[in-house]
Amino acid sequence: VTAPTWVAEARGSLFDVDNLPYAIFSVGGAPPRVGIRIGDRVLDLARAASRSRPDLVGLLETATLNPLMAAGHDTWSDVRGWAMSLLQDEDQRTWVQPLLAEITDVQVKMPFDVADYVDFYASIDHATNVGKILRPTAQPLMPNWRYMPVGYHGRAGTVLPSGSVVSRPSGQQRPPGSDAPSFGPTLKLDIEAEVGFVVGSPTRLGRMAPTDSFSKHIFGVVGLNDWSARDIQAWEYVPLGPFLGKSFATTIAVWVTPLAALAAAAVPLPGQRPGPLPHLRVTEPAGYDIDLEVEINGVVVSRPSFRDMYWSPSQMFTHMTSNGASARTGDLLGSGTVSGPHRDQLGSLIELTWGGQEPINVGTQQRAYLEDGDSVVLRLTAPGQISRIGFGDVSGVVRARPDIC
Amino acid sequence: VTAPTWVAEARGSLFDVDNLPYAIFSVGGAPPRVGIRIGDRVLDLARAASRSRPDLVGLLETATLNPLMAAGHDTWSDVRGWAMSLLQDEDQRTWVQPLLAEITDVQVKMPFDVADYVDFYASIDHATNVGKILRPTAQPLMPNWRYMPVGYHGRAGTVLPSGSVVSRPSGQQRPPGSDAPSFGPTLKLDIEAEVGFVVGSPTRLGRMAPTDSFSKHIFGVVGLNDWSARDIQAWEYVPLGPFLGKSFATTIAVWVTPLAALAAAAVPLPGQRPGPLPHLRVTEPAGYDIDLEVEINGVVVSRPSFRDMYWSPSQMFTHMTSNGASARTGDLLGSGTVSGPHRDQLGSLIELTWGGQEPINVGTQQRAYLEDGDSVVLRLTAPGQISRIGFGDVSGVVRARPDIC
Repeated sequence: VTAPTWVAEARGSLFDVDNLPYAIFSVGGAPPRVGIRIGDRVLDLARAASRSRPDLVGLLETATLNPLMAAGHDTWSDVRGWAMSLLQDEDQRTWVQPLLAEITDVQVKMPFDVADYVDFYASIDHATNVGKILRPTAQPLMPNWRYMPVGYHGRAGTVLPSGSVVSRPSGQQRPPGSDAPSFGPTLKLDIEAEVGFVVGSPTRLGRMAPTDSFSKHIFGVVGLNDWSARDIQAWEYVPLGPFLGKSFATTIAVWVTPLAALAAAAVPLPGQRPGPLPHLRVTEPAGYDIDLEVEINGVVVSRPSFRDMYWSPSQMFTHMTSNGASARTGDLLGSGTVSGPHRDQLGSLIELTWGGQEPINVGTQQRAYLEDGDSVVLRLTAPGQISRIGFGDVSGVVRARPDIC
Repeated sequence: VTAPTWVAEARGSLFDVDNLPYAIFSVGGAPPRVGIRIGDRVLDLARAASRSRPDLVGLLETATLNPLMAAGHDTWSDVRGWAMSLLQDEDQRTWVQPLLAEITDVQVKMPFDVADYVDFYASIDHATNVGKILRPTAQPLMPNWRYMPVGYHGRAGTVLPSGSVVSRPSGQQRPPGSDAPSFGPTLKLDIEAEVGFVVGSPTRLGRMAPTDSFSKHIFGVVGLNDWSARDIQAWEYVPLGPFLGKSFATTIAVWVTPLAALAAAAVPLPGQRPGPLPHLRVTEPAGYDIDLEVEINGVVVSRPSFRDMYWSPSQMFTHMTSNGASARTGDLLGSGTVSGPHRDQLGSLIELTWGGQEPINVGTQQRAYLEDGDSVVLRLTAPGQISRIGFGDVSGVVRARPDIC
């Protein structure tokens, strides 16, 4: 970042010119297209391209980021550099300024079409806590956990944009002391505060993508809330893993932060013992210094840090392709719940309330799990090149489920 | 089916006019489009529509079945009835006959874009056998198994059309007696003979699709081979389920059999004890009388029957949406391995060889698991309205994995 932006009110904000996240937006009834955020405004990148970069119009005048994501790393650098210069160069201000809309005047939608959604389990604190809560008589960490970033496929079709209402799921639960399950609304609706990584350039079927190819394939980063129904999950997950306890909703930010915007946020991993197998070795710094804030009904209940994650996103990506499975444009990799070693750094209610046994204060109320009407917001920030950069909020409100059929 | 087809050589074959499966095909360098199979010929349905049903051209002159699948049950009936009449009505023969291509002259491709892929575990014999083999000291059937069709999300991006080569996956395996895993090509490459159900009409987010809506939402049926690496799976699958042991390849038939073609194949389920919870109750007959044949290197090694499946496909579909998760056009539901109670009815090598300990004869050779160069074909048939109907073959050849990166 070589010069300040002429958008004066953006300087020093969470959305300064070192950030520039992408969204699909529309304004004044125009068709949705690609925009970037600067301060509290959205630059219509598609219209800017039609004037100064006609070669990019095909990638930007579309209702999804997928074409831009598929265009590859060199194009991402090109577009980001061009967008940055539009907002830095005073000579361009006259024609660019009219292409800025107030963020309160625009509509945003799902930013990209999700191909496959894979959710990992990369926080050692989260994996240990959940192991202790769900399997109190067994070793909390499974024997495989320190050898691979354990993960599973989630439901791509229910990844929703921030702001979506979340209907309380129904499902089978086994009441304590009973052999047989009953079917009804979950009594243990939870959140998982995560970071999501979005694949741009695909990989080839039959080939593993090495850890050092991560930045070539990953387009950007989003905050992610992996809503979870703990009672449904506990009954169903043996032996094939979580399914309906997770598949009803996953919320992501509508703003996709370019991976390039996180250059100043790179940090070394906390340490891996034993050292990873050769194909999972990384060149440090392989971690990201991203702070998360979990807010319920306006009250911050936790501040996890992505710095504490055991496995790096590049290790997750390489693991996912290590059997030769191809990654596609639009693949979404969730990190798993971000939790740290301290009580105020836990990214889920099952941990914060220790299986619901120790409700937490949310303002004047108490919560074990979420109630209908509750509102959840995840906020993420990280060091930028100028000051701190912000991610888009990840928000959702819980509602009672409508009639069953 | 009211009259015989004028395609004389198709009469009484597995692809008589009561079958009429769909594929995406191309011939003579023309763009891919929708075709239907009659005997050993393919009718160019897109060109037929341009002459007699211009309103259907938009659904048929496309490189994927998804638009037709999304058009809904009434349109499926309409298109099927029209196609049937074209092949029955002698008056139409003059102009329709030139639109038939020899099946050996056409190229076929992936028939539809897979949205989410969910794999179930609906054979009680398979679940019991695998439980005994993988967890010899525990109860083979988990407590939840008789209450729900247990399932999990697989990888949609590696669902491949029949005929695709399958690269032997690498992954982490823990050798017997060792604490630490090593990384390398799987030594336990297996198949799973399954039946796949393809969603046409989507369901609404937040609403469960009842079991009696199954035929309204399901467009068709395909044979499916869920290739599996048992050593990778055994090490990774606790606690989040199978991931890389399955995600490298799933092969489906390129011909999608319309659900309507299976009307004469409906049979009652073998029986469920205890009876299912109210939302999973079905009106019988809810099962399908589909015979499978597993062929390795030209030798039939097993003949499982879908008649033996404990859970019905309609129960799988309702379970998948019972938490409010929406189903999309292109969702693929795998039944899980089809195995029966007898030794010659097992749909996977891990069962046929009892964990690799009792190799089976494949012609003059023996196999515990698949070797490089091995060829696998699944063949499926079912009672039709005229005689038996055939499904498209599901074939694949195993090759050694290319260089790792």
